[in-house]
Amino acid sequence: MTAPGTITDYLARRAAEVNQSLGALMPSEDTPPEKLHRAMRYSLFAGGKRLRPALVLASGEAMGAATEDLMPAACAIEMIHTYSLIHDDLPAMDNDDLRRGLPTCHKAFGEATAILAGDALLTLAFRVLAKESAAQDPERRLAVINEIAAAAGSFYGMISGQMADIESEGKQVDAHTIESIHRAKTGALIGASVAVGGIIARASDDEIARLRSYGQMIGLAFQIADDILDVTSTSEQLGKTPGKDQAANKATYPAIHGIPASEARACQLIEDAVASVQALGRDTRALEEIARFIIARRS
Amino acid sequence: MTAPGTITDYLARRAAEVNQSLGALMPSEDTPPEKLHRAMRYSLFAGGKRLRPALVLASGEAMGAATEDLMPAACAIEMIHTYSLIHDDLPAMDNDDLRRGLPTCHKAFGEATAILAGDALLTLAFRVLAKESAAQDPERRLAVINEIAAAAGSFYGMISGQMADIESEGKQVDAHTIESIHRAKTGALIGASVAVGGIIARASDDEIARLRSYGQMIGLAFQIADDILDVTSTSEQLGKTPGKDQAANKATYPAIHGIPASEARACQLIEDAVASVQALGRDTRALEEIARFIIARRS
Repeated sequence: MTAPGTITDYLARRAAEVNQSLGALMPSEDTPPEKLHRAMRYSLFAGGKRLRPALVLASGEAMGAATEDLMPAACAIEMIHTYSLIHDDLPAMDNDDLRRGLPTCHKAFGEATAILAGDALLTLAFRVLAKESAAQDPERRLAVINEIAAAAGSFYGMISGQMADIESEGKQVDAHTIESIHRAKTGALIGASVAVGGIIARASDDEIARLRSYGQMIGLAFQIADDILDVTSTSEQLGKTPGKDQAANKATYPAIHGIPASEARACQLIEDAVASVQALGRDTRALEEIARFIIARRS
Repeated sequence: MTAPGTITDYLARRAAEVNQSLGALMPSEDTPPEKLHRAMRYSLFAGGKRLRPALVLASGEAMGAATEDLMPAACAIEMIHTYSLIHDDLPAMDNDDLRRGLPTCHKAFGEATAILAGDALLTLAFRVLAKESAAQDPERRLAVINEIAAAAGSFYGMISGQMADIESEGKQVDAHTIESIHRAKTGALIGASVAVGGIIARASDDEIARLRSYGQMIGLAFQIADDILDVTSTSEQLGKTPGKDQAANKATYPAIHGIPASEARACQLIEDAVASVQALGRDTRALEEIARFIIARRS
């Protein structure tokens, strides 16, 4: 970490930096079509923890990149994460009314606007990746776009995870399937976030692979922790309706393994992830603390 | 044109080339999640005319690019066009049951799958643009991504047009508004298709601007022709439900200007577009013929 303080202080500081950059990259609320841009900003600034951008920054800085070279990719990944939440919440998908304690995008702006706001955030993310941060060489910038597009896509990426998640509803799924859903739905984009930091920092292929692996492990642990929180939390703590997974008969890690084994698995993944980045021989304290924070969080 | 034949022969030949490349770029139907990839291929191979890819190829070849360097961008733009159709057809948007004579994606695969199939096609398009066609220099490839992302986006791009179109339903809109909707919804991506050919061919900024302008003009003419067809065609000719615009109380060009004035405007746009590319001093016959075909088509 570049400054003393707890991990929550660190994340709050990074979130403030990211929010400032996001604000500058997003069309303003009075840019036509105004309702669409209001909806995009509403969901983007609904109080997300900015975990993925923080991982881009922490990873890239550990490997020697400058913060300003990392920021456009950090913001683009948050736009993609936000689009995925907007679309996942739609009535035809998870049909959620609340997200981070606020009405979901389609509840606040209507379904058509929510679909288009998601589409527009995904599209804007790639524009930001192609256009901003002129300091990086173009080959690296294309590698970043490829890494993110693969992680967000239908081929073992985020969309394949959401699709498999929907298809698993009401079905008996085995331990292997639930883990592969979590890896795709959450692990892929978090893995890409950490890898992208390495790519921008001109890390070697081996180092990038190690960073990606750290990200995939903490991403899986994050999703297991999310499943546990869904069972054990109240609505107020969670900012969304708890018990939704169970009610929807959704495949979850604790439903198959029970809560103690799920907690043990999440802890083991975090320790493996920490060991993986420590082996890089860099100052990876921020990455280590973020990993531990992920399973300690209460919302 | 590179070979003798009518414009319909030319377009059929380019469509066959594009379909072959699209088939190779798309995950197969037995790639998990199978249902998602089937849905993506279903809509992508539902008989589109491949107008936008043909424009990328015709423009780029006129400016001296090799076909194989143009093909990935041509395919990516068709993926983006297809995603926009899937999402526009959704119940929350235009609520269409038929597209090109076939059930729309959500009718055939369900709404959740259709939303994700659209998301995945958009994401894959950017992956193709970043990863394929190693022959091009990376700076040009980033310029192509930026051109396409801007044209597909919420800031005067395709999504802003769809949003404005939805918002105009049931309202009195003036001639200026209807034209700006058409320019954004259809003109922007067609303009980008033609510009991208120029970018890949290393055309000058002035030449690229001229190509983009040709594309924007024929795109507007295309949409005006589409509005006229909606009024005058049968369901069989159109492959979708005619009179939908009127039933939905949608803003259309003929509703404001009448059919004769709409036809005259479309013709004038085409003649201006043809004059614009003729001034390039290249063999732009394919572009000229495509422009004239756009308002002569009957479906």
